[in-house]
Amino acid sequence: MAEQTPAASEENADGGKTAHVVFTPSGKRGDFPLGTPVLQAARQLGVDLDSVCGGRGICGRCQCSPSFGDFSKFKVKSQEQNLSEFGAVEERYKSKRKMKEGRRLGCSTFIQGDLVIDIPEDSQVHKQVVRKRAEVRNIEIDPVVRLHYIEVDEPDMHHPSGDLERVERALKDQWGIDVDRADLPVLQSLQKALRAGEWKVTAAVRNNHKLVYVWPGFKDAAYGCAVDIGSTTMSVHLCDLHNGEVVNSVGAMNPQIRFGEDLMSRVSYVMMNPGGDKEMTKAVRETLGFLLVQAATESGVDPNDILEVVLVGNPIMHHLMLGIDPTELGWAPFALATNQPLRVWASEIGLDGKVNPGSRAYFMPCVAGHVGADAAAVTLAEGPQYRDEITLVVDVGTNAEIVLGNKERLLACSSPTGPALEGAQISSGQRAATGAIERVRIDPETLEPRFKVIGADLWSDEDEFAAATKKVGVTGICGSGIIEVLAEMYLAGLITTDGIIDGSLASRTDRLVAEGRTFSYVLHRGEPEIRVTQADVRAIQLAKAALYAGAQLLVDKLGKPVERVVLAGAFGSHIDAKYAMVLGLIPDCKLDMVASVGNAAGTGARIALLNKKARDEIRATVHRIEKIETAVEEKFQQHFVEAMAFPHKTAPYPNLRAAVTLPEPKVASDGNEGREGGGRRRRRRG
Amino acid sequence: MAEQTPAASEENADGGKTAHVVFTPSGKRGDFPLGTPVLQAARQLGVDLDSVCGGRGICGRCQCSPSFGDFSKFKVKSQEQNLSEFGAVEERYKSKRKMKEGRRLGCSTFIQGDLVIDIPEDSQVHKQVVRKRAEVRNIEIDPVVRLHYIEVDEPDMHHPSGDLERVERALKDQWGIDVDRADLPVLQSLQKALRAGEWKVTAAVRNNHKLVYVWPGFKDAAYGCAVDIGSTTMSVHLCDLHNGEVVNSVGAMNPQIRFGEDLMSRVSYVMMNPGGDKEMTKAVRETLGFLLVQAATESGVDPNDILEVVLVGNPIMHHLMLGIDPTELGWAPFALATNQPLRVWASEIGLDGKVNPGSRAYFMPCVAGHVGADAAAVTLAEGPQYRDEITLVVDVGTNAEIVLGNKERLLACSSPTGPALEGAQISSGQRAATGAIERVRIDPETLEPRFKVIGADLWSDEDEFAAATKKVGVTGICGSGIIEVLAEMYLAGLITTDGIIDGSLASRTDRLVAEGRTFSYVLHRGEPEIRVTQADVRAIQLAKAALYAGAQLLVDKLGKPVERVVLAGAFGSHIDAKYAMVLGLIPDCKLDMVASVGNAAGTGARIALLNKKARDEIRATVHRIEKIETAVEEKFQQHFVEAMAFPHKTAPYPNLRAAVTLPEPKVASDGNEGREGGGRRRRRRG
Repeated sequence: MAEQTPAASEENADGGKTAHVVFTPSGKRGDFPLGTPVLQAARQLGVDLDSVCGGRGICGRCQCSPSFGDFSKFKVKSQEQNLSEFGAVEERYKSKRKMKEGRRLGCSTFIQGDLVIDIPEDSQVHKQVVRKRAEVRNIEIDPVVRLHYIEVDEPDMHHPSGDLERVERALKDQWGIDVDRADLPVLQSLQKALRAGEWKVTAAVRNNHKLVYVWPGFKDAAYGCAVDIGSTTMSVHLCDLHNGEVVNSVGAMNPQIRFGEDLMSRVSYVMMNPGGDKEMTKAVRETLGFLLVQAATESGVDPNDILEVVLVGNPIMHHLMLGIDPTELGWAPFALATNQPLRVWASEIGLDGKVNPGSRAYFMPCVAGHVGADAAAVTLAEGPQYRDEITLVVDVGTNAEIVLGNKERLLACSSPTGPALEGAQISSGQRAATGAIERVRIDPETLEPRFKVIGADLWSDEDEFAAATKKVGVTGICGSGIIEVLAEMYLAGLITTDGIIDGSLASRTDRLVAEGRTFSYVLHRGEPEIRVTQADVRAIQLAKAALYAGAQLLVDKLGKPVERVVLAGAFGSHIDAKYAMVLGLIPDCKLDMVASVGNAAGTGARIALLNKKARDEIRATVHRIEKIETAVEEKFQQHFVEAMAFPHKTAPYPNLRAAVTLPEPKVASDGNEGREGGGRRRRRRG
Repeated sequence: MAEQTPAASEENADGGKTAHVVFTPSGKRGDFPLGTPVLQAARQLGVDLDSVCGGRGICGRCQCSPSFGDFSKFKVKSQEQNLSEFGAVEERYKSKRKMKEGRRLGCSTFIQGDLVIDIPEDSQVHKQVVRKRAEVRNIEIDPVVRLHYIEVDEPDMHHPSGDLERVERALKDQWGIDVDRADLPVLQSLQKALRAGEWKVTAAVRNNHKLVYVWPGFKDAAYGCAVDIGSTTMSVHLCDLHNGEVVNSVGAMNPQIRFGEDLMSRVSYVMMNPGGDKEMTKAVRETLGFLLVQAATESGVDPNDILEVVLVGNPIMHHLMLGIDPTELGWAPFALATNQPLRVWASEIGLDGKVNPGSRAYFMPCVAGHVGADAAAVTLAEGPQYRDEITLVVDVGTNAEIVLGNKERLLACSSPTGPALEGAQISSGQRAATGAIERVRIDPETLEPRFKVIGADLWSDEDEFAAATKKVGVTGICGSGIIEVLAEMYLAGLITTDGIIDGSLASRTDRLVAEGRTFSYVLHRGEPEIRVTQADVRAIQLAKAALYAGAQLLVDKLGKPVERVVLAGAFGSHIDAKYAMVLGLIPDCKLDMVASVGNAAGTGARIALLNKKARDEIRATVHRIEKIETAVEEKFQQHFVEAMAFPHKTAPYPNLRAAVTLPEPKVASDGNEGREGGGRRRRRRG
């Protein structure tokens, strides 16, 4: 038997020869009788070495890399002849599947002397998905559902027992798994699967105790989907549950848009039309089903291999997806049906036939009536709760969800930004797609613009630009483009601190054109012509003021300044920190402490899909988040009015001013218009 | 605080007065401060006093009976003035609902001095349902689902929480219940229920931890259904989960009959018609749904108040109801999909909309591939596993399921009797309904018969018989009538030991008429004329030989003789032990040790419905039953052939002979026919 002390090959108590084996990188070590398979030795020592087939030379998951040489630090001389020769099973596996040079199959390789064996990252059960940004934690792969290949006893008339009971016994004997529950769909397909696989099957086991599906023969493909249901768009990420890879990402408009553009108009629809919630539930479920099947079939995955779906969304999307009437979220006191995470059958939310019949749908918890599961997911992805710095996490959608704090304390609220920051309600706005303007620069002398569009890597004043955009065209401005053009206009003096497009500059540029009492700036002369109108500036002012006011409210409560900002959401990954700060979208902090992270809600959903412990973690975190309701906070309105100016009426923005020269405040000739916007009655929840 | 020592009223440590209260029949006693409600005192002592409303004077479940007088054995003088006066709450309850004279509401009655208070049986939480037969155990009411009235906090914007979380807190604070899971249907209806009930609701909680439904306001009606799915008939017993009463029983033919009369022909249908199992599943589920709604509406019960369904049936019905293809049960080795009990959503077996959306369906476990959940239910109802005497339990359906043993050891098998004992495959056979002959006597001198039919209480030779049966008619012979007429014919010498209708007696009676080579006996001259044919005798011989052979096989294995017989099944409660033994349907034992118990499978299902511990009990019992497969037992065929004779070829039947004079064995002139039947090839599984 294995022991954890170093020793050279020697005879054991039985007189049989043993060898000393060291596994890296764990450093776990022990003595084993000659002839022991490497996989067995690894298991005995608790080394993290994967296997689906249970050591039968089928799955190839237990690949390991023997290292040869004199490892003085381990006091082990690892020699090539101390390992059995490359055998038939390994040859067969290597010829059929890919196996790197120098790798061996742990189950089919036998110890014949002292060895040092490395377990590569991709052979570990709990391997890590490395994330691009250094400041966020990697994802450890540990999904709720795992596959296990088993060989099942045939029925015996002299000792009658159910097929299920023999499957359970095989899981116990061959994998140490105690199944205490089997789903009905398992029972409905079990007998045929056992006979089709000639008593060899692969079982999907949930949380190490619940049998959810059985396939004939060996199988090693298992998938899950991370779903983000936004008010405007829905996205599905199909993930391989073995290595965490995103196999495919697909998206679609939320079909509920036909019932109302923003959340509040959808709740109003329900209030005005009894049963309207059921129409919307049906619409969103159908689209999700369609997306799941699309994601699978596009990438050659059988939808029946999707074993888990994790969903996030704002509270109203969360409720509608679950078939819960969202009316209570439309008025004070904005009571959620529940703020706990939920696990239901995928079939309970209309996904029968779209995924495996044993598949479950896991809904991340909502934080409060206005702060959804998407905010919980963003928190999980960004982890402010693990940091020392006071971090502001902003998830911009049609509603902004805002989390502030650090490992000591977390606060959250939502703010009704409306869809302007996503490019909606903007005269030339469009979603971030090919042809959309996403980068803008304006020469402060000539007031001439140049820009880049999605799908072409050139600035509009470069020679090849016309040719490069001939096909994609220049079709509109996306969210990040709006931020840049307004910030550049402000920096060039085209917009005043109060947000007025300054018509007095029309003498310097013909790009400023009068439209009634106000002026517009022509960003692109073409078909279509793309202008920035006074109404566009107002829409962004209202949105950014709401966002800032929400953040400021949390800063007030916490009593500490923001040290770090994370911008997430539809426009997130492309937004430039400087411009966001120039417009006063976010509070002041060091510019290099602002990160734009894109769809962090989707990332959070993916983490919850790939790692079951993350679910407990975020549940506990959500529980301790202090929920602030902007609707009952008197100071919110005051913060909002003060935040209408660029970058802000009173906030000094020292870090920003150190990096960028802001224009001197000036009031345009038509100054009244600038104040009118601040008093405009905001709708509750964008 | 309460103490368990007797004492007269005295001051307690705080200087406040206390009184001594004794509860009967438990004898629990303690001292309580004056003014304590009786319900609270009972709870503190752990006295079994019911309540749904939690002491709010609504449900009336906590009724108790104060006893007045000098109770020297308790050293307590219980006086009328020691109890608060009949108050407004009690007046209101009494005027609206029934409350017996002398009863008080425990929650609204206050202790003012020493008292002896009796808790009547119907006020106990764990009350007993007393069963008619003394030898079987009563049923303690302890269902998986219970109702609890709660008052829930309203949502507060300053301390946001989900509605569900406040419901859970109320259940914890007001009932000590830790809910750890809420079904999706609860969440879908919760918010409306809370507001409709003005934050007072009644919650249905499963197994003390799972929230399954919430109704606005107070509610105390909860129901469950015990379902027996036979090959030929289906029955549903609607039970009140509070007091265990059967509120309504309804039944219908199993609609699968159109796919085949017996089990084997239905399995054959599946083998011949791919997808045929789905047709049969659909048919039986639809009929069950119809029966559930019928049972409820006929008795004024809202189907939404049905919170639990317990199902029993033979293995093939069990599998088909669950949507499991029964093909494997049609051939050796007769492998069940599972031999464990199963709990699924009622909606998973097609009962959505027929019962409460939170309702579950519990399937009792099958014993083996041929021995179903009905046998498990019969075992639960009859409890041979608790007895000293070796008990033979026979459940007669289209297949007989047989259990033999006592508290030390239990064996089980099934035997293919076919439907003859239920009146099918008999020339004038019919099911036990109005107009069916169920009792028969034949004068051994005149060979003239007299009989009784269901629905009239007169013998056919009585004066008023014609008038009494004018309306119902004499329509056929039911199962128990067949047993009696054959036994009486045999006792009168009309049938030989070998089962031949003895044509040589035609000279003595014109009721014997020739039909081809054989004779028939005219039991009733009317419209229709009711005869017993030679084929009828053969059908019963085959059935009873199969039954006896199965029982004998178990006796062989056990090595001990039968001391007690329980006859259950479709014809069960009306069958006369003497006649069953005269025909050799059951082995010899003392005649007063034979009980006919009717639908014991339905009773077992009802026990599992009303008492959750019974489920664990029968699961453990089924696990230890030794399963005997008649198909692989060589001696079965020999036992079968020997059991063809009346009462048996070799068994001496001493107890029977002590009570009844059996005819001398004689061989009819046409003796060959008698032996032919025994060798006839039996079909597998009637």
